[in-house]
Amino acid sequence: MKYEPRNTTAEHDDDEMLMIEANIDDCQGEWMGYTMEKLLSSGANDVYFTPIIMKKNRPAYKLSVLAHQSKLPKLTQIIFTETTSFGIRHYPVTCHRIERKFEQVHTPWGAVNIKIGRHLGEIVQLSPEYEDCRRIALQFHLPLGTIYQQAIDRFQQNHMVPREEK
Amino acid sequence: MKYEPRNTTAEHDDDEMLMIEANIDDCQGEWMGYTMEKLLSSGANDVYFTPIIMKKNRPAYKLSVLAHQSKLPKLTQIIFTETTSFGIRHYPVTCHRIERKFEQVHTPWGAVNIKIGRHLGEIVQLSPEYEDCRRIALQFHLPLGTIYQQAIDRFQQNHMVPREEK
Amino acid sequence: MKYEPRNTTAEHDDDEMLMIEANIDDCQGEWMGYTMEKLLSSGANDVYFTPIIMKKNRPAYKLSVLAHQSKLPKLTQIIFTETTSFGIRHYPVTCHRIERKFEQVHTPWGAVNIKIGRHLGEIVQLSPEYEDCRRIALQFHLPLGTIYQQAIDRFQQNHMVPREEK
Amino acid sequence: MKYEPRNTTAEHDDDEMLMIEANIDDCQGEWMGYTMEKLLSSGANDVYFTPIIMKKNRPAYKLSVLAHQSKLPKLTQIIFTETTSFGIRHYPVTCHRIERKFEQVHTPWGAVNIKIGRHLGEIVQLSPEYEDCRRIALQFHLPLGTIYQQAIDRFQQNHMVPREEK
Amino acid sequence: MKYEPRNTTAEHDDDEMLMIEANIDDCQGEWMGYTMEKLLSSGANDVYFTPIIMKKNRPAYKLSVLAHQSKLPKLTQIIFTETTSFGIRHYPVTCHRIERKFEQVHTPWGAVNIKIGRHLGEIVQLSPEYEDCRRIALQFHLPLGTIYQQAIDRFQQNHMVPREEK
Amino acid sequence: MKYEPRNTTAEHDDDEMLMIEANIDDCQGEWMGYTMEKLLSSGANDVYFTPIIMKKNRPAYKLSVLAHQSKLPKLTQIIFTETTSFGIRHYPVTCHRIERKFEQVHTPWGAVNIKIGRHLGEIVQLSPEYEDCRRIALQFHLPLGTIYQQAIDRFQQNHMVPREEK
Repeated sequence: MKYEPRNTTAEHDDDEMLMIEANIDDCQGEWMGYTMEKLLSSGANDVYFTPIIMKKNRPAYKLSVLAHQSKLPKLTQIIFTETTSFGIRHYPVTCHRIERKFEQVHTPWGAVNIKIGRHLGEIVQLSPEYEDCRRIALQFHLPLGTIYQQAIDRFQQNHMVPREEK
Repeated sequence: MKYEPRNTTAEHDDDEMLMIEANIDDCQGEWMGYTMEKLLSSGANDVYFTPIIMKKNRPAYKLSVLAHQSKLPKLTQIIFTETTSFGIRHYPVTCHRIERKFEQVHTPWGAVNIKIGRHLGEIVQLSPEYEDCRRIALQFHLPLGTIYQQAIDRFQQNHMVPREEK
Repeated sequence: MKYEPRNTTAEHDDDEMLMIEANIDDCQGEWMGYTMEKLLSSGANDVYFTPIIMKKNRPAYKLSVLAHQSKLPKLTQIIFTETTSFGIRHYPVTCHRIERKFEQVHTPWGAVNIKIGRHLGEIVQLSPEYEDCRRIALQFHLPLGTIYQQAIDRFQQNHMVPREEK
Repeated sequence: MKYEPRNTTAEHDDDEMLMIEANIDDCQGEWMGYTMEKLLSSGANDVYFTPIIMKKNRPAYKLSVLAHQSKLPKLTQIIFTETTSFGIRHYPVTCHRIERKFEQVHTPWGAVNIKIGRHLGEIVQLSPEYEDCRRIALQFHLPLGTIYQQAIDRFQQNHMVPREEK
Repeated sequence: MKYEPRNTTAEHDDDEMLMIEANIDDCQGEWMGYTMEKLLSSGANDVYFTPIIMKKNRPAYKLSVLAHQSKLPKLTQIIFTETTSFGIRHYPVTCHRIERKFEQVHTPWGAVNIKIGRHLGEIVQLSPEYEDCRRIALQFHLPLGTIYQQAIDRFQQNHMVPREEK
Repeated sequence: MKYEPRNTTAEHDDDEMLMIEANIDDCQGEWMGYTMEKLLSSGANDVYFTPIIMKKNRPAYKLSVLAHQSKLPKLTQIIFTETTSFGIRHYPVTCHRIERKFEQVHTPWGAVNIKIGRHLGEIVQLSPEYEDCRRIALQFHLPLGTIYQQAIDRFQQNHMVPREEK
């Protein structure tokens, strides 16, 4: 098996990120899914919703958008255009991201990319790519978890010293 | 201090109750507070919202209405008229309610009604009435908790054997 | 404008539905999205997740699946295969669904289907189809809400008596 | 129809706002509604609750208060007096608010104020006032949504170029 | 490695279960953790909390207790004694549980029990016991996930046909 | 009764605190309880989880860790090692903590420590210690609330002027 690195990123701090938030108490749920999609395709690093309780018995959701500060005008415009918000707030956050590297492993049903995370040089995360696993699971009628488990197993066989030598 | 019973209800099972539910993913939050208000004033015993996640990334809320089965048509109509729901579901539930009795105690700032709950004859709940406590707290500029604590304290002084005799 | 009914369903009660539930405290979030997708494509009428708190500080989610009782074996198998659940529970629910009819309206940017809901013969819901609105919004770079509003507006112009006659 | 502007505010950034937060795991729910009410009447711009899970299986809520920094002492005192909190935290946030203007429209059942939001000069929000719509809905026994829809419809008729000219 | 079965239970339906629920809007969070503990040690099969929104802006939690119907009086008494509830509700649910069997595997750091779940004869779940994994993780200063992964890996080596023969 | 102060802390602001957050969408619930435990025993002041909705229908939880800035490297390492996170974010928060003092009171069933909170010199919080109350409740088979109420009652008798003199 050969390394097939892709998008390797070193561990780093990013001090130019913003958390942008809006409380949305009168917006349709299906519009919010649409808004999430637009924000992600317009440069947001992450988008999520949190259930909150607002005044006058109003069940609501908080929209949170993590993005580089340079994206603020574009993302703000999407929020004002697509949701019913009259105001947003934001504050700077420091993001610490571990080293990311991709490696491909070969399962009995095909190749799966694994996202490998290193913190201070040590591997701390092994995350098989969802879309790869999903495709195989649907094609071979296997449980999704089987593909994940197999991919991680193969990765470890490729990288660890043989067990009998331990 | 004299007993001033009001609305005493014996402990009982009620087998004629329904839980009525609707998942609402495209309704405004402020309409939902309004719907809660209308359902409660039209015979629902209890109304509450639960945050849920529906398909297509839709943040949503489940509306739950606990009511006697005879109220089903009226409450269903309110749900269909005031929310964006195309369907509701319901199932029978047995409600067990403990004995409720009200008694008035006299705090330094005025009278407060206490709801007393008995299970199998034993007092298990002492609940000062929120509206009484709120009124006093606002009038005398006192913390709400002080009124609650004082009301319960007075109730116990009225009913318990003197401490020195214990 | 001509009526283009599609899938018209009369208002009715359905007494053969089940609510199937499982508490899932050790399953990956991305597997849960996948499970939702498989359940919906295998006959579930509705699938949703509710945040819950389980013992030992475990943040978890409840999976809820609304389906006809005939689908129980198939859906149960998916839950056991795709999630980490060792047990599911279910109980019968009665579903009341209002009359559904689809009608197409013509907005300045193309046709949009509207789902019309009638309760006891009265129109109570007008719900433009999300996929139609989304497609137009993306194509014409318009806010999603503009398409919804326009579609409803057109429907009402087609069906209501002229305003000046009121 | 004539413009009846009220409280017009230009689009602006506000750099002097604080988000004040407290985790509350041993406070009664009805005290929290009371606390929300007191905070809003003492200068908080927004108050909301978020469900959280704390240690030792404790279901809890986070109280969030958005306010100008000058309000910190007053609001902090309310939180310490009315809830069971032993500590609060706060951090500065920048609020961006779009232009707000109010305009009255005349529906068949009476006047409704609409809050109009403009971002970079473009109308992005039309929000009929809840209290106006609620009053009419209760008086005329109409669905709340009908009043909202009618109010928006009237606004658009007043402001848009005639449809036949498009 | 030898099989060390423990508590093997065949796949089965249980028709004598109840879901017992109470909405709790004025109870301290730390009391709720205590109540969960007491309910579990008094015969409840499962206990969990769901965040809900009740009237008057009250953030609340629903307590859900899954138990055999014979436990109803005991569990009801605990709820009334330990929480502030004046009423509970319950409804019958059918529980379907898959076959459970325990097997011990030997990791490099000690033995770990694995709970094995079978649905219709097929293994669908492999769940290393949390307490075993936690003990090893703390003793050897290893990530918890490493123990889980290793335990599952060992189980599969013990049971699967050798990889080279595939 | 004698004062038995313990850990008295004056009211103060702490400007060196960080809120550290990570969105976790593919981590097991039981691992998260374990992570909370490790973070608290490694210097975090507070740890809590918030339910959130991430992209692709993924039910998830946000992990929040409040800690002194000097703890950042240690706590970050735990998050990367024990959860499936590839990135964390943090931002400075100012913590305001009221004066804390402990005092012991003697209930009929034994001693209970009470945490007393003072804001601007006024007592605003009286919080009987959970572990003390829990131990007594289990030993004497009493409701937990009874112990809390009795402890607060005793404190107030010790400190307030006699009622008949008022």
